[in-house]
Amino acid sequence: MELLRKKVIDEGIVLSNQVLKVDSFLNHQMDPVLMKEVGKEFTRRFADQEVTRVLTIESSGIAPGIMTALELNVPLIFARKQKSLTLKQDIYVEKVFSFTKQESNEITVSKKFMKPTDRVLIIDDFLANGEAAFGLARIVEQAGATVVGIGIVIEKSFQPGRQLLLEAGYRVESLVRIAALDNGTVNFVEE
Amino acid sequence: MELLRKKVIDEGIVLSNQVLKVDSFLNHQMDPVLMKEVGKEFTRRFADQEVTRVLTIESSGIAPGIMTALELNVPLIFARKQKSLTLKQDIYVEKVFSFTKQESNEITVSKKFMKPTDRVLIIDDFLANGEAAFGLARIVEQAGATVVGIGIVIEKSFQPGRQLLLEAGYRVESLVRIAALDNGTVNFVEE
Repeated sequence: MELLRKKVIDEGIVLSNQVLKVDSFLNHQMDPVLMKEVGKEFTRRFADQEVTRVLTIESSGIAPGIMTALELNVPLIFARKQKSLTLKQDIYVEKVFSFTKQESNEITVSKKFMKPTDRVLIIDDFLANGEAAFGLARIVEQAGATVVGIGIVIEKSFQPGRQLLLEAGYRVESLVRIAALDNGTVNFVEE
Repeated sequence: MELLRKKVIDEGIVLSNQVLKVDSFLNHQMDPVLMKEVGKEFTRRFADQEVTRVLTIESSGIAPGIMTALELNVPLIFARKQKSLTLKQDIYVEKVFSFTKQESNEITVSKKFMKPTDRVLIIDDFLANGEAAFGLARIVEQAGATVVGIGIVIEKSFQPGRQLLLEAGYRVESLVRIAALDNGTVNFVEE
């Protein structure tokens, strides 16, 4: 996606060979026109999938998620993150480990918002190790629903998430793919 | 706002005389078409204010915030909530107490995204005691910028937030105003 790629080049800050900071348009300050285009692009890529719900995770997934849900004309659900939880009957819970923060969170979705007939598109801002995407996918599967695909705004292709998701049988569509962060420069996967 | 009022009547669940659950369209599952209309309505109400930035707080403020920012064609910033924080030079920090959760959080905004020339519209999903709105307003004022108004999706008018914000000199625009939650019924403020 050219517009997004340009944003990453113009505004992304390479903090290390692992970390790209994009807080001027995606993670803290958000560019709503870009988010709208992201929603359109995910919709184009998953147009044949008869999506009934978009699922994301708070907080940075919500803006691309709601724009995708708007284009697809289906509801968005955002999973909540919690440190720990007294187990409840009416929610799906999965544990997700964050390598960035070196901590585990429980992510939760109310059972009433996901049915076995649902065809769910998972959206997230970043893909690195795939922990969040796998956690969301496990929640969909707990509900007996179908994961039709995983849409990622920025994929760090040098980390194992994409490969692990593909091996598990998921379709992954990433709007930009980053091959490496070297010497302060973003190198994209050429497709 | 009639569409929103209808949603509250049809899908809101009165849990007590203090708590209205709207997790089917605003707080967990989100209705993107409704969020788009919310964004249009805030834009209509603040059209004369030359807004340069929309400010909200994670997580439930992000969807109405991004739709408002899209209509106004300005960036959205979402303040992050954190339990505690090692103080940093490059962020504005304010303490916000949540009566619902009975806990304090620190909310933060990067200094680089707010300038003294900014005219900031604050958006949030709920207004009860006004703690979050005041915290966001204090951040804008730390930056030397101007709060042009506060846009609220659902106001619990029987709690003191609105009155306190008006007394402090802020303009408050709430899309629905709830007078009372009695015997499982939502009573609206008639305007």
